[in-house]
Amino acid sequence: MLNHIRHLLIGSPLSSAHAGETRLDKVRALASLSPDALASVAYANQEIYLGLLVAGAAGLLRATELALVITGLLAVLALSYMQTIAAYPSGGGSYTVARDNLGELPGLVAAAALLLDYVLNAAVSLTAGVAAIASAFPALWPYRIALSLLLLLFITLINLRGIREAGTAMIVPVYLFLVIYLGLIAYGIGVALIQGPGVFPAVIPQPAELTTGVGLAPVTLFLLLRTFASGATALTGVEAISNAVPIFKPVESDNARRTMAAMAVLMGILFLGTIGLTQYLAVVAGAEETILSALARRLFGSGPVYYLVQAATLLVLIVAANTSFTDFPRVVSLLARDAFLPRQLRAVGDRLVFSNGIVLLAALAGLLIVIFQGDTHLLIPLFAVGAFLAFTLSQSGMVVHWWRERGRRWRAKAAMNGLGALATGVALLVIGAGKFTAGAWIVILLIPLIVWLFRSIRAHYAEVGRQLRLHEAAPPVGCHVPARIVMPVAGVHRGVIAALDYACSIADDVTAIFVELEPGTAEPLRARWTAAGLDRVARLVTVPSPYRSLLGPFLDELDRMDDAGDGPPVSVLIPEFVPAKWWHFLLHNQTALPLKWALIYRRHRHGRSRVVIDVPFYLDR
Amino acid sequence: MLNHIRHLLIGSPLSSAHAGETRLDKVRALASLSPDALASVAYANQEIYLGLLVAGAAGLLRATELALVITGLLAVLALSYMQTIAAYPSGGGSYTVARDNLGELPGLVAAAALLLDYVLNAAVSLTAGVAAIASAFPALWPYRIALSLLLLLFITLINLRGIREAGTAMIVPVYLFLVIYLGLIAYGIGVALIQGPGVFPAVIPQPAELTTGVGLAPVTLFLLLRTFASGATALTGVEAISNAVPIFKPVESDNARRTMAAMAVLMGILFLGTIGLTQYLAVVAGAEETILSALARRLFGSGPVYYLVQAATLLVLIVAANTSFTDFPRVVSLLARDAFLPRQLRAVGDRLVFSNGIVLLAALAGLLIVIFQGDTHLLIPLFAVGAFLAFTLSQSGMVVHWWRERGRRWRAKAAMNGLGALATGVALLVIGAGKFTAGAWIVILLIPLIVWLFRSIRAHYAEVGRQLRLHEAAPPVGCHVPARIVMPVAGVHRGVIAALDYACSIADDVTAIFVELEPGTAEPLRARWTAAGLDRVARLVTVPSPYRSLLGPFLDELDRMDDAGDGPPVSVLIPEFVPAKWWHFLLHNQTALPLKWALIYRRHRHGRSRVVIDVPFYLDR
Repeated sequence: MLNHIRHLLIGSPLSSAHAGETRLDKVRALASLSPDALASVAYANQEIYLGLLVAGAAGLLRATELALVITGLLAVLALSYMQTIAAYPSGGGSYTVARDNLGELPGLVAAAALLLDYVLNAAVSLTAGVAAIASAFPALWPYRIALSLLLLLFITLINLRGIREAGTAMIVPVYLFLVIYLGLIAYGIGVALIQGPGVFPAVIPQPAELTTGVGLAPVTLFLLLRTFASGATALTGVEAISNAVPIFKPVESDNARRTMAAMAVLMGILFLGTIGLTQYLAVVAGAEETILSALARRLFGSGPVYYLVQAATLLVLIVAANTSFTDFPRVVSLLARDAFLPRQLRAVGDRLVFSNGIVLLAALAGLLIVIFQGDTHLLIPLFAVGAFLAFTLSQSGMVVHWWRERGRRWRAKAAMNGLGALATGVALLVIGAGKFTAGAWIVILLIPLIVWLFRSIRAHYAEVGRQLRLHEAAPPVGCHVPARIVMPVAGVHRGVIAALDYACSIADDVTAIFVELEPGTAEPLRARWTAAGLDRVARLVTVPSPYRSLLGPFLDELDRMDDAGDGPPVSVLIPEFVPAKWWHFLLHNQTALPLKWALIYRRHRHGRSRVVIDVPFYLDR
Repeated sequence: MLNHIRHLLIGSPLSSAHAGETRLDKVRALASLSPDALASVAYANQEIYLGLLVAGAAGLLRATELALVITGLLAVLALSYMQTIAAYPSGGGSYTVARDNLGELPGLVAAAALLLDYVLNAAVSLTAGVAAIASAFPALWPYRIALSLLLLLFITLINLRGIREAGTAMIVPVYLFLVIYLGLIAYGIGVALIQGPGVFPAVIPQPAELTTGVGLAPVTLFLLLRTFASGATALTGVEAISNAVPIFKPVESDNARRTMAAMAVLMGILFLGTIGLTQYLAVVAGAEETILSALARRLFGSGPVYYLVQAATLLVLIVAANTSFTDFPRVVSLLARDAFLPRQLRAVGDRLVFSNGIVLLAALAGLLIVIFQGDTHLLIPLFAVGAFLAFTLSQSGMVVHWWRERGRRWRAKAAMNGLGALATGVALLVIGAGKFTAGAWIVILLIPLIVWLFRSIRAHYAEVGRQLRLHEAAPPVGCHVPARIVMPVAGVHRGVIAALDYACSIADDVTAIFVELEPGTAEPLRARWTAAGLDRVARLVTVPSPYRSLLGPFLDELDRMDDAGDGPPVSVLIPEFVPAKWWHFLLHNQTALPLKWALIYRRHRHGRSRVVIDVPFYLDR
């Protein structure tokens, strides 16, 4: 039944033999791995605009500079990561690279940072997308959180179905977004050439949350740096492809590198193009619209094309969340393989995807959405820190990698990654400082915590392994454990007979214990016991229960018997009814279950194992 | 831990030896059993006032007549029930009486009616009480439902502590209520004598929900009957004492009868007194106050005395809900004894009270409060039907009882109960007809459903009993069930060794099954198996798992082995880790639990019992 629903939702199981089939070609891979990076154009633009707006026109005139800096950073990152892909065809996520080259601790820090970032990306993209839908159709506004969660569920199911389907589903919106935005930029350049530069108005409307009342801020270096910190969110998700090399069709690394290059170029064009046009045409946004929407309206007016642009933006933002779903589970399973996370997260599920990881991500992202009330602006400040921390570590790791290998042209490669490390490192400092109070502190606090968790989990597994290891002192298999069997009885009936029959077949020493819940019931029972001739097989012990509880007196009696005999604790054989229909369980006070739990999970006083034997008796109807 | 909280809330367990101590003397019994009846004066008055109000002054002038009719009915009921008490010293609830004398079906109908009525009483009293508090302190209004539930919880805990404490806790409010109201009536009579009769104003303010817009309704017979139907709610709860005879101090029946008489007299005085005064002084209520509050204000003005009266009303209403808690569990346990309800409801709990029944009542009442949004007026119409149905059945039962016995003066007694049966029967028809559309239909629908439930539950128990009964064909205890043991293994470690040691001690035929979740893991395991010399003890079977699922392939293998050998299904021995800390469970994929469930609760193909042996292996830390 449950299985039916499951298969309906996520499809029937796939055999391991099919593993190859879920690989992606470049077109699908781009659709499946790039949206995070591409879509960030949407919120990065907005953050840069808002960041400079407080300085009025003077500020906005610096937008393109910032955009160029960030694009430069993008170029450096892309080239460095293409090297990483070549060096780690098996998937060189920041975790792997940092761990291999810098050691365990940096590796774990990188991993923690990356995981946080994936969760945040899922949450931010969904809330941003929903917020956009909602600002187009204000009626949806009150249901913002619910909508985000609904989309989250949708994406989760798609991903549980398997990577390839996910890739397929994503193709349409991603390429729609690309075509429309490239068209917008081309058209915009045309307009710019014809109309020439625009001039910013003296007074620019400011969104309520920005108006300080003290007039315009001066264009300070700090202002620029802080704006850069916000804008840097455009680069989150660049590393996605390098983590996911193994999902490409062979030759994996080549395909991955080409895809990486294509993505970087597209990102650059979109980001630079939109910001450049905005500044050149001196576009300003009203208090209640995003700068991208303002640009689109400036070019196309409020006609159908405008709505098409908006729709594409929303779609790609939703899809962006999907990137986390292809990557987070993979990193998690790597960590689980190294015993830093529960081993359930390592397993591949029914559909050859890391189901548990997917579900975990969905849960965490859902939590973030609920906690932050589905508000993108509250989430953004937490966002970039993790990404850049991971960037810096993995780039530094690559430097060490090349130096160790000292292969052909290693200096050039090391220099390239060195540059990447430097650039991202500086950016990290700027972001951490600029956004600390705004929420970056949360991430800076969480990362060490997560690392601690990783380590204590592995410590546990190590300890368990030690306790289970077979060494010379291991107990030999002697096959003569003296089995004494105790059996709780509530009456004399066929269920008891069957159980008793089994008990005396496997052991010579069998005792039946009757707990006298209602005073005066013991003697009649003993009579029936003898009448049925059961005393020949097992002696009957009756214990009083002044407080009408079954468990207590029974366990006390067991302890007494353990002390009486030497050897291991007595085994307990439980005769258990199994009703024909589930609701019949309500009609039988389920003493068997609590009893089993008490016996197995409450450890025996001397820490020795007490065996529990369960003899079911099936009721027909 | 959980136990600590429990004992803190409801006290530590009481030994069966203390059973006698929880009996009540008359004073406490009155406090514990009468509030339902006494407090109903509060809402019955109000319903009568509202019922007649639609006919204006002409209508209100008929109030005392109705009150006299209802009081007459009360007298008849009281006398009949005093006879019942004498005849059934062990507690003659409507259920017992109807079943013994009219047969099973009427008995069950009475029981169903009664149970519904107890639940409704708990809900109505609480909501009425809270509504009263809230109209005194309007700030509380929005929290009406929450407050009702809070009080429900409070009363539930008190009752779980045990009857006597409950009785004690109720003494204060009940007697406070009695003193204050008797005082009010005495003072009111004085005022009436001095000031003489009042005259109703021409125009009387009507509560919003009553104003029909078509002016005043004529005083038709139907109007009077419908008003009577509402007013009859005053009599709900009269039977409480006759159900609870056994909780009185010996001589139970004498004490119970005296208490019954006292209660009836008090009720009569309160009901008749308040309504009589209201009419004589021509008191009318404003749109936003109850008629009782209006009367109190008329007599005492809006001073402290007025507030005292209100407070007493609220308190007693809250206490009234408690009546259900002393009675409902008792009736439920009677039904459980006769196997019409799950037997868990029969047991006496830690504190010598029927804990499960108490909790069940709390749950149902809570449900009603939530469904009906804590609104008394919506609940009232459902209320009286059950009570009068039970009355009628039990009275008719008594007639049969006397006729069967034909003891001394049996004719007189039979006549008395016959009168009761007739009166309550007529009232029942009036109520059912007058309130049908207003909600009585729900009860009329529910009662047969509940009776059906009773019967199917008993049918189930009967069937189980039949299947378990020992007859000549019962299997003899031969003590030679051939035990073949199968054991799932995931590796070679100390846990497996220990389990294997136990397995081969109780059976000669032991098989270990390894499900190959990750291709290529089988052979290495077999090597280690042999290396550890385990192949001497158990043969190792490895089964592939193309879909990476453990359960499926393992169960298939079991079935295969069952078919191979004759005799009973193979037993399964499960080696189970038990981590030291609860959160460690998260770190081990719990395959043992689902496996056990699948083996025990998913029945074996041929419906034969498969024994499951659980060998725990405790991890130290």
